[in-house]
Amino acid sequence: MENERVPEVVEKLDLDELKDEIVELIDGKKYGLMRSKLLELNEVDIAETLEEINDRMGLEKEILVFRMLPKDVSVDVFAYLPEDDQIDIINGITQSEINQIVQESAFDDMIDILEELPANLVDRILMNTPKEERKLINTFLNYPENSAGSLMTIDYISFRENMTVDEAIQHIREVGLDSETVYTGYVMDDSRHLIGVVSLRSMLVVDGQTLVSEVMHDENILSVTVKTDQEDVSKEFKRYGLLALPVVDNENRLVGIITVDDIFDVIDDEATEDFQRMAALSGRADEEYLDKSVFSHIMSRLPWLIALMCSYIVTGGIITRFQDMLSAMICLVTYMPMLSGTGGNSGSQSSTLIIRGLATEEIELKDAAKVLWKELRVSFCIGIVLSILNMVRVMLLDGNGFMVGLTVSLSMIVIIIVAKLTGSMLPILAKVIGLDPAIMAGPLVSSLTDLVSTLIYFVLATQILQL
Amino acid sequence: MENERVPEVVEKLDLDELKDEIVELIDGKKYGLMRSKLLELNEVDIAETLEEINDRMGLEKEILVFRMLPKDVSVDVFAYLPEDDQIDIINGITQSEINQIVQESAFDDMIDILEELPANLVDRILMNTPKEERKLINTFLNYPENSAGSLMTIDYISFRENMTVDEAIQHIREVGLDSETVYTGYVMDDSRHLIGVVSLRSMLVVDGQTLVSEVMHDENILSVTVKTDQEDVSKEFKRYGLLALPVVDNENRLVGIITVDDIFDVIDDEATEDFQRMAALSGRADEEYLDKSVFSHIMSRLPWLIALMCSYIVTGGIITRFQDMLSAMICLVTYMPMLSGTGGNSGSQSSTLIIRGLATEEIELKDAAKVLWKELRVSFCIGIVLSILNMVRVMLLDGNGFMVGLTVSLSMIVIIIVAKLTGSMLPILAKVIGLDPAIMAGPLVSSLTDLVSTLIYFVLATQILQL
Repeated sequence: MENERVPEVVEKLDLDELKDEIVELIDGKKYGLMRSKLLELNEVDIAETLEEINDRMGLEKEILVFRMLPKDVSVDVFAYLPEDDQIDIINGITQSEINQIVQESAFDDMIDILEELPANLVDRILMNTPKEERKLINTFLNYPENSAGSLMTIDYISFRENMTVDEAIQHIREVGLDSETVYTGYVMDDSRHLIGVVSLRSMLVVDGQTLVSEVMHDENILSVTVKTDQEDVSKEFKRYGLLALPVVDNENRLVGIITVDDIFDVIDDEATEDFQRMAALSGRADEEYLDKSVFSHIMSRLPWLIALMCSYIVTGGIITRFQDMLSAMICLVTYMPMLSGTGGNSGSQSSTLIIRGLATEEIELKDAAKVLWKELRVSFCIGIVLSILNMVRVMLLDGNGFMVGLTVSLSMIVIIIVAKLTGSMLPILAKVIGLDPAIMAGPLVSSLTDLVSTLIYFVLATQILQL
Repeated sequence: MENERVPEVVEKLDLDELKDEIVELIDGKKYGLMRSKLLELNEVDIAETLEEINDRMGLEKEILVFRMLPKDVSVDVFAYLPEDDQIDIINGITQSEINQIVQESAFDDMIDILEELPANLVDRILMNTPKEERKLINTFLNYPENSAGSLMTIDYISFRENMTVDEAIQHIREVGLDSETVYTGYVMDDSRHLIGVVSLRSMLVVDGQTLVSEVMHDENILSVTVKTDQEDVSKEFKRYGLLALPVVDNENRLVGIITVDDIFDVIDDEATEDFQRMAALSGRADEEYLDKSVFSHIMSRLPWLIALMCSYIVTGGIITRFQDMLSAMICLVTYMPMLSGTGGNSGSQSSTLIIRGLATEEIELKDAAKVLWKELRVSFCIGIVLSILNMVRVMLLDGNGFMVGLTVSLSMIVIIIVAKLTGSMLPILAKVIGLDPAIMAGPLVSSLTDLVSTLIYFVLATQILQL
């Protein structure tokens, strides 16, 4: 997708109305008018309208409308369609139409399309591609899924250091339309080593006879390798506010660039991955909820539920051991869900804050002691407030005695402190031993807190109530 | 910050070593060498090194080193420092140094600085600003915190439609260094109405005598108003892969632009806000964990904990009502934490998936029925598997009878279904009535599930076990 795409779109609200209108026009077979209405839209919005046509009127109509688009528009629209629609359309159009789409797509879009398609379709598509290009495509298809290699494109602008700025700008004029971005150029030596980076802005403000080598930045050039994880790539973009980032191989030879428009998806996927891990969900983060089958939903949820259930077996064991005490004072059961639930909630609060802080790099491992000290003070104060509220509840609302109130209130303070310290330290511990801190979140912390809080409550009860 | 900043930085690992080296040089009072080492770095990394100097050697040394920076570097470095360090430095340097920083900063950075400073400092700084500029600054300071107005800058490039492309490019050459971006220009009529948008790329590939009006996009120009929420602004950037977006007032007059580098922070803040709401935390998302006081940590956590505790009072009431039944068969207590915990966990899974789907717009309100049907099937299957596991546990592991096993297993199926349907529907319901779906997450869903699952378990127990 072109990097400096100039917005030419309608606002969301109008878009919904336009979709209705277009559906009506298709219904009335007024295809000419429909087509011209549709072509007033930006490619992003045309793709969304096609999806809507599929939802409301079926695949056949979507393919029909897709085929009516001018070839140059349909190529861009195709790139914006979700994977499912892409596969359906590929299956519904002719081989020559497929070839057209693949050959006209931007290189990184084409790789994205090929990556998602079933193998037999990829073979059909690559059948007519020249051998050299097929080799390059296969290299790209083999980069690991979340690596810089899978994000990059080969459509960048390169200069020689002995070019003048005028020559460089002339070069941009010639190849600019096919490049992902024209605003940053990359300077290579004879062996394709990256030796400099130059912005179009810096070339515009100097004399045209200046050499590229004089305006380029050539010290400590920021780059990533094809194997760099996409999360690290997105961190570089955020940290330095980049528009593009060069990708090099092990010998520092330039092999591609990544542009900022492809980073938005990465940031969203990384956040989604964290959300899912924090809610005890395994599996891929880039699959859409509605597209995912019931079976694969079950497989992403069941393992964690079973694992967490095991910690409750231990909690159950503790309860069984204290069964006689509970029988002797059955009103103690009343406060079990409140104590463990509140413990779980306050542990979740802490773990979420720390997980997020680690993810955005506001909190580092060396801050562990500061975090511990802060959580200790916070949990002590919160524990005091909640224990006073509970004393009031137990004695005034439920009419139980002072000793029961004391048991519940004291348990509350200890539970809150334990929950918050556990919740805040587990993510840091996970990071130390190389695990993703996000797994040490709500569900796991709640399950552990449940176990500990049950034990604390019962031990305090036996002591205070002499049971 | 300049939009196409060309990366000139060292990798993270080297940076840590360099920081150690710089701290040592300061210790040894080798300031000359220290300064030249420091100036090899990018402004982002210099700012980070200053923070580190403050952490390790105290504020005085940070100010000392900051004052040694060349004026043009120190202005950029200042913009990258965290708020606390900015305030400390402002308090430690002279009025003329402050004026220098404020006057040389990019307009949007200056507004950011002023927004964070205490009022008396702002007055001191604005004292020497010309009246017209002071008025403009005050307008910007009054835009609501999370609005497009607070994100935008006035440093954009504007053209007249009757300019030639050569004249337009010449204009960029003259003012380019002070603009936030030179890659998109905005075309205004005599009353400052936005009538077109033109990319530098599109101007480079046409003849120099072409008129700007011929290459500009002038239909359905995408823009936001000063009041648009920053979350909606970031959605437009993601949706269309934008580099910059114009901001207009109610009469469609151009008042500023927002560039992509300022959107990264917005995306992070919006995700952090969701993470916090989902963990029952209230308050601001842009405050750093370690900078926040113990008191304000307590205030962001306590209200939700108390509110959720109230739902446990209801759960406690249910338990009290069934107290006699529990006394008669105390082993039932053993399974309470497991049932409500697993219910809570599976409810959290569903609510997280739906909240995230709504946030990324993969799920829309019209998909509610599809979501319900999917969750129903998923929860039924998960319920069956977990109930079989529990039957085995209750009978073989704990040695309780078949009827107890049946009670626990049946309860499990019903609880999982109720939890997943509640977890998936509450966020959608929140969205319908105009609340943030993120509040209907783990903690709230767990608390509600706890209440319902206790009731289900006890009712089934009385029926099956004839208690």
